[in-house]
Amino acid sequence: MGSDKNPEPDVAGAVLAAQELTEDVIVLVGEETAVRAELDKHSPLPSNIEIVHAPQAITMEDKPAQAMREKRQSSIHIGLNLVRDGQADAFVTAGNTGAVLAVATLHSLKRIPGVLRPALGLLFPTADSTPMLIDAGANADNKPEYLYQFGVMGSLFMQKIKGIENPRVALISNGEEAGKGTSLIQETISLLQNSHLNYVGNIEPKEFIRGDVDVGVVDGFTGNIIMKTSEAIASGISDMLREAMMKNPLTILGGLLARPAFRQVRQRMNPDEIGGIPLLGVNGAVIIGHGRSNARAIQTAVYQARALVEANVVAAIASGLTEQTNGHQ
Amino acid sequence: MGSDKNPEPDVAGAVLAAQELTEDVIVLVGEETAVRAELDKHSPLPSNIEIVHAPQAITMEDKPAQAMREKRQSSIHIGLNLVRDGQADAFVTAGNTGAVLAVATLHSLKRIPGVLRPALGLLFPTADSTPMLIDAGANADNKPEYLYQFGVMGSLFMQKIKGIENPRVALISNGEEAGKGTSLIQETISLLQNSHLNYVGNIEPKEFIRGDVDVGVVDGFTGNIIMKTSEAIASGISDMLREAMMKNPLTILGGLLARPAFRQVRQRMNPDEIGGIPLLGVNGAVIIGHGRSNARAIQTAVYQARALVEANVVAAIASGLTEQTNGHQ
Repeated sequence: MGSDKNPEPDVAGAVLAAQELTEDVIVLVGEETAVRAELDKHSPLPSNIEIVHAPQAITMEDKPAQAMREKRQSSIHIGLNLVRDGQADAFVTAGNTGAVLAVATLHSLKRIPGVLRPALGLLFPTADSTPMLIDAGANADNKPEYLYQFGVMGSLFMQKIKGIENPRVALISNGEEAGKGTSLIQETISLLQNSHLNYVGNIEPKEFIRGDVDVGVVDGFTGNIIMKTSEAIASGISDMLREAMMKNPLTILGGLLARPAFRQVRQRMNPDEIGGIPLLGVNGAVIIGHGRSNARAIQTAVYQARALVEANVVAAIASGLTEQTNGHQ
Repeated sequence: MGSDKNPEPDVAGAVLAAQELTEDVIVLVGEETAVRAELDKHSPLPSNIEIVHAPQAITMEDKPAQAMREKRQSSIHIGLNLVRDGQADAFVTAGNTGAVLAVATLHSLKRIPGVLRPALGLLFPTADSTPMLIDAGANADNKPEYLYQFGVMGSLFMQKIKGIENPRVALISNGEEAGKGTSLIQETISLLQNSHLNYVGNIEPKEFIRGDVDVGVVDGFTGNIIMKTSEAIASGISDMLREAMMKNPLTILGGLLARPAFRQVRQRMNPDEIGGIPLLGVNGAVIIGHGRSNARAIQTAVYQARALVEANVVAAIASGLTEQTNGHQ
């Protein structure tokens, strides 16, 4: 019941995933009548789809803390509880991010022991790689210890999921010099330097966006601003280009001929292909997709969730954080 | 002596400006022999150019605080002192931003009485307007009172320079809801609400980049990150597009035909046409250009400096800040 157009893309994406992942079972959590009606549009229906009824739904307008307390029968609550209770291995949603954070962290899964703050680890599309921007928006106010742990969790994710042996971890700042940045950054540097992480220093957004590192550590407010600024500039430029091209027949023709190139770049930056954002640090595998998710985005998010489970990222964070913490003390 | 290729673009830009602004005098501050040698390449030389010798130069590698103390005969010191002493009306530089900030704020011009922190007011190119992003990087650590004053200074600038009667001022946050954002943002909201400013609420980067407001208030760390992320995404996308187009003859042809559209968008986003960044809150008119400034950028920055002086923005900030402060108390 999560996406803006739910349950249509959510169900369609689940069906696509179920068709591929024939050994897995996809559980649809939501208002049973609505979900079943949507499912009936797909035939033949894969046999590895189940429905768990959730009488309530948290909307994008709901306030996270209030929804967490008051809508205990929401699909977000019930879905996360299935993971908590071992009846599901992972939870995928395109719903209200704040509510998922609140329910997962405070109500249902809770934090992995030792984790101070769960974080959103966005895989950021660059020309040749997808480095992780962590935290992409779970925590507005931060402490150096949180940022250090974001680095640990991001590094473990890139190791386990992307197979990068010794991920390069950098702090994102407004300059490369160690003296630049906020006092939060200043205080985080020594934690990173004294850790087992492959900390390569401070970088500017330019170096991160160029793909120079594997993990860009940032407070959740700034990370969210980087994510949203990137989306806005990309779509602003493409709007300006389209408008400029429509001005005369030759540039219109040029735009048509060059269309495969535009399509390729758009595909590369397409959030539907990247999937959702892993919520790292909670005691279970959770992928949060964009509200605008289509079926393809939901399908990709299911694959991501599956990868999290297969690589056992939750256990890796639990043990990795203990090691790291012992290491840097 | 400021730009990366100094003194070539600096002198060439000054000559271009002097040719247009025949009633004004352009004073070149720098190593006299080098400046004169560069000037000799331009003929006929406009008669309204003078040289003031500065034996030292602060480089991009110099640490601002140290350079401020130790290079007192730098072109930045001497140029700013000319403004302080009434021998020049404004100072334009493409030099080390941190050093200009330090020398202007702490050594030479000092702050306008009542100003807590000077700020960089970047005019941000959107499709149809250039709203001000303030602070774009002068202050890493911030307090609500600073942000409130950034709003006042930005609003006065847009009134005086852009002729906008009642500039729309917004706080840039990671969500429009008043409950979102850092504690700094939470505390700034009530200051803005209780002021005489036309405070229109909190906006995300998307709304700012779309040009929905006239002034986007932000702490200097986040503002700098927004500026740098925007530059990096714009250049990253254009690199990806160029590469994608080079792949086959048809898309190459398309790119050639569509070139006027690309050029138009690039022109729109071109920092050389926008000029430098006004440093608002110091007791004098200062424009800081990009280190990569070419002659055109320097010329534009001189025009900007002239506009600051003509509109008497410094006096407007001095009196406006007093009014605003009385108003919101």
